[in-house]
Amino acid sequence: MENQSITHQPELAFDDSERNALYKAIYSRRDVRGQFKPDPIPDDVLARLLQAAHHAPSVGFMQPWNFLLIRSPEIKQQVHQLFLSANREAETMFETPEKRQLYSTLKLEGILESPINLVITCDRERAGPVVIGRTHDMAMDIYSSVCAVQNLWLAARSEGVGVGWVSIFDRMKLKKLLNLPAQVTPVAYLCIGYVAHFFAEPELKSAGWRDRLPLKDLVYFDHWENSHPEEGCTLLSVLESTP
Amino acid sequence: MENQSITHQPELAFDDSERNALYKAIYSRRDVRGQFKPDPIPDDVLARLLQAAHHAPSVGFMQPWNFLLIRSPEIKQQVHQLFLSANREAETMFETPEKRQLYSTLKLEGILESPINLVITCDRERAGPVVIGRTHDMAMDIYSSVCAVQNLWLAARSEGVGVGWVSIFDRMKLKKLLNLPAQVTPVAYLCIGYVAHFFAEPELKSAGWRDRLPLKDLVYFDHWENSHPEEGCTLLSVLESTP
Repeated sequence: MENQSITHQPELAFDDSERNALYKAIYSRRDVRGQFKPDPIPDDVLARLLQAAHHAPSVGFMQPWNFLLIRSPEIKQQVHQLFLSANREAETMFETPEKRQLYSTLKLEGILESPINLVITCDRERAGPVVIGRTHDMAMDIYSSVCAVQNLWLAARSEGVGVGWVSIFDRMKLKKLLNLPAQVTPVAYLCIGYVAHFFAEPELKSAGWRDRLPLKDLVYFDHWENSHPEEGCTLLSVLESTP
Repeated sequence: MENQSITHQPELAFDDSERNALYKAIYSRRDVRGQFKPDPIPDDVLARLLQAAHHAPSVGFMQPWNFLLIRSPEIKQQVHQLFLSANREAETMFETPEKRQLYSTLKLEGILESPINLVITCDRERAGPVVIGRTHDMAMDIYSSVCAVQNLWLAARSEGVGVGWVSIFDRMKLKKLLNLPAQVTPVAYLCIGYVAHFFAEPELKSAGWRDRLPLKDLVYFDHWENSHPEEGCTLLSVLESTP
């Protein structure tokens, strides 16, 4: 099968080592909260991360993102206060005392410890009111900014830089604190810095919060909840052998 | 600067060739609409694409996605009809006759030509009502599914496989056609297949619809619209020299 795929597009597919490098980034990327080091990120490295984000797909080539780099300790402190306030609310929401207890022990952000905080935004009016591909789903521009986040996240992993996405905020308060205009949505608040190490597994998995789901259970064929592929399809057995 | 970054984390950063491979995927990925070949995608290649998607970050390790693979010509035809109907509406929305004319010439999907259509969904109830990190922003699970799309998109590029995201649908009609349960959102409708070639540039750029924005104009420092970094920061000049 391996050779079959290579034969298809010898000039378009990457060679094995290149492809493995991409998969290495995808599999070893982590949401970093607690292992940040204060070392500054050199400007050329930071430039590569931002370029990677800027080359994300965007609906109608809208490129709706901005990149607000926050290094000011005062602003980080204010953002951290917003997190603490929302996090206290969050803890009370879980259904059982056990979940609330476990939740309170989790470290969920590195706002103060990471040398750079980065807000990736979406300007809903970047390309006028009518945007190719957004005509029937107004959220597509937000999704473009999310793709920029993921590009940056993978690029950072390859640079040895950790990224953590903090989402426990009252978004309107965050938007006000950052003085964002009405049409600009703060899509992702990222903590960025070199790290002492990357965990081998997602922290919520290691903490016993949730397991990784078996991928084969998540794949359907032609019809929702149809887990039976057409005859001759070996996809599910391949998925089962590579969890 | 190069050596400075390598020195930081010799064991955590990828080596140059690995890092370059990731950037190659990020820079050469395209939204494919018109160059699909009918060649089937081998199951081991398809498995790698789905594994890449499944290893995306997800809020609260929720893994809210399913992967609905569509190969049935009948279902593709029905989806294509939905596209045609929405696309006729879309064309009338543009402000000027010139834009409407240009829009009508653009090929915006490869639903029928691509051997596989893939719907990546988000099950809003995958992990119960209260999810770590989703307590204050209910859209975070949707963003997780978008990250899965971007992982798959990059992996596909490295395999020589093209991906196109079709968003010009009435989403409720698409959801009904695919029989998705109420709590499941169809986040992305993807056309997937080997391609005759990948374009060097985004098609909307080549078509003169929009240019790539200069990245340095999109970066702010500490405060919204502040384009002046602290003394000694060379980021903007680095960005300017690598457009």
